[in-house]
Amino acid sequence: MCSLPGSRKPLRRVAVTGGTHGNEMCGVYLARYWLQNPGELQRPSFSAMPVLANPAATAACRRYIDRDLNRTFTLTFLGSTATPDDPYEVKRAQELNQLLGPKGTCQAFDFILDLHNTTANTGACLISEVSQNPFNLHLCHYLQLQNPGLPCRLFQFEPPGSESYSMDSVAKNGICLELGPQPQGVLRAELFSQMRAMVASILDFIELFNQGLEFPAFEMEVYKNLGRVDFPRTTDGHLTGTVHSKLQDHDFEPLRPGEPIFKLFSGEDVLYEGDSVVYPVFVNEAAYYEKHVAFLKSEKIRISVPALPGLTPSSTQTP
Amino acid sequence: MCSLPGSRKPLRRVAVTGGTHGNEMCGVYLARYWLQNPGELQRPSFSAMPVLANPAATAACRRYIDRDLNRTFTLTFLGSTATPDDPYEVKRAQELNQLLGPKGTCQAFDFILDLHNTTANTGACLISEVSQNPFNLHLCHYLQLQNPGLPCRLFQFEPPGSESYSMDSVAKNGICLELGPQPQGVLRAELFSQMRAMVASILDFIELFNQGLEFPAFEMEVYKNLGRVDFPRTTDGHLTGTVHSKLQDHDFEPLRPGEPIFKLFSGEDVLYEGDSVVYPVFVNEAAYYEKHVAFLKSEKIRISVPALPGLTPSSTQTP
Repeated sequence: MCSLPGSRKPLRRVAVTGGTHGNEMCGVYLARYWLQNPGELQRPSFSAMPVLANPAATAACRRYIDRDLNRTFTLTFLGSTATPDDPYEVKRAQELNQLLGPKGTCQAFDFILDLHNTTANTGACLISEVSQNPFNLHLCHYLQLQNPGLPCRLFQFEPPGSESYSMDSVAKNGICLELGPQPQGVLRAELFSQMRAMVASILDFIELFNQGLEFPAFEMEVYKNLGRVDFPRTTDGHLTGTVHSKLQDHDFEPLRPGEPIFKLFSGEDVLYEGDSVVYPVFVNEAAYYEKHVAFLKSEKIRISVPALPGLTPSSTQTP
Repeated sequence: MCSLPGSRKPLRRVAVTGGTHGNEMCGVYLARYWLQNPGELQRPSFSAMPVLANPAATAACRRYIDRDLNRTFTLTFLGSTATPDDPYEVKRAQELNQLLGPKGTCQAFDFILDLHNTTANTGACLISEVSQNPFNLHLCHYLQLQNPGLPCRLFQFEPPGSESYSMDSVAKNGICLELGPQPQGVLRAELFSQMRAMVASILDFIELFNQGLEFPAFEMEVYKNLGRVDFPRTTDGHLTGTVHSKLQDHDFEPLRPGEPIFKLFSGEDVLYEGDSVVYPVFVNEAAYYEKHVAFLKSEKIRISVPALPGLTPSSTQTP
């Protein structure tokens, strides 16, 4: 039987991917460390596999070589006939799909935890593509309980098209862990330690799930993506201003209509013209300039999450 | 007569260069803005020329395309016979040398102000290659007096070889303005405003000099480069640790023997083993990983700067 998202079987095949973007250094160096020291990713019921997802971009210390790998895991790219002229990341996505997928099949890994950094002041943030996936909601809640000093928000980002395209979408279930602020190409000691501790907590959660623990119902807040806001630009695409200092570093804080969002180089302020409070996320993220995103707007919603029942003893046995 | 460094003639031909590194965004966007709005760079006795120094790297939002432009202004590169296979930055250095030099000749510009950002927490910092250049010392002192809320340090960096290689070395005199911390590829509003205000002050200083003002003697502290400290690394060059959180963001603050400088991934601390207090600069700068620099050590010295005499009336007349 195939274990699909929300399935009732233990997660045995788990991967932790770092360096999906080659200049996001916590994941790059954690993956490299674990490839030499795999014991840290072992739990009684499973051993997570570390993967350096984009070795060429990592070697060049760039986000990507030819195209954004974390937008390349669509069935169209994964199923295309390989040619020597394919962009590097299309080739690499196909390799990763062989290693951890194939996407959408019973052979795919049970879970991928994909590690990222952002230049935005997000703190710790989990990004889940699947709307209100119970396992991911419980995982986030567990992280919040285990790390009270480090708020961990859940950002629900459903891809704009109909199809998922991210690294973690190759497995039956997955999640992306973002940690910021950290400049591209820089490894800050305290963020490295925080990400390492959060990965350990996530693996602990999977272990408890595999052991058959029941997780009780709870309520939590999630931030749901409402769309992008671009920088003010000239007709040829150059900025005419940047994020206002009153918005800079205020990720996940309320933005009210009439509050400033941009400072133009001419000195004027641009005000937020929406008609309701939103919660900006990824404010002034370096990699999003080219994607025409100064920040994402989100709404904060409170949801009731039902209990995650314990696995039955028969399903928790090692096959 | 040729006006060389320390000369007694007004500075008429002044350039302000941004985007020498294509992902240091304050200079990139200031240069672009001034190319459309040159009035901000005009003073009664001169009009500074804005230059976007590395357009290809700027378009790609990378430090450089083929090699670091700001290490390419040696006479060897500038004097080499052009071939189609030259690295992009060698071609571009030769173009800039035609525009603003030729380096070392009477035809060269009088002054180049080269704008940079760093991911390190340097605050505002002027980098002067020429040891105790009186004009640059007075310029820095003027900035300190004009901007009491924004400490501006002078970092004296003599190139390791015998020859200067930086953008500003093309002119008869020049200086580099660094402002940090700012991630690569990000434009933060408050740093953009700070750099803009500092450039205005520097042009005001040149104007006062050109008008024949005498600047009195004073004392100041300068930070003199003592050399690099690399990250701890494996034999194949990967990091085995990163800058310790007790050193991170503490640029220009004293580092004493026995204090921690690195946190290894294994958990151990690496302590500073020098035998005297040093002042780290460019701590954990993204672009210096590949240059094997975790930080530069400097010594803080106090110097007496003699008065800068006023120009004589005959020399201040427009030629």
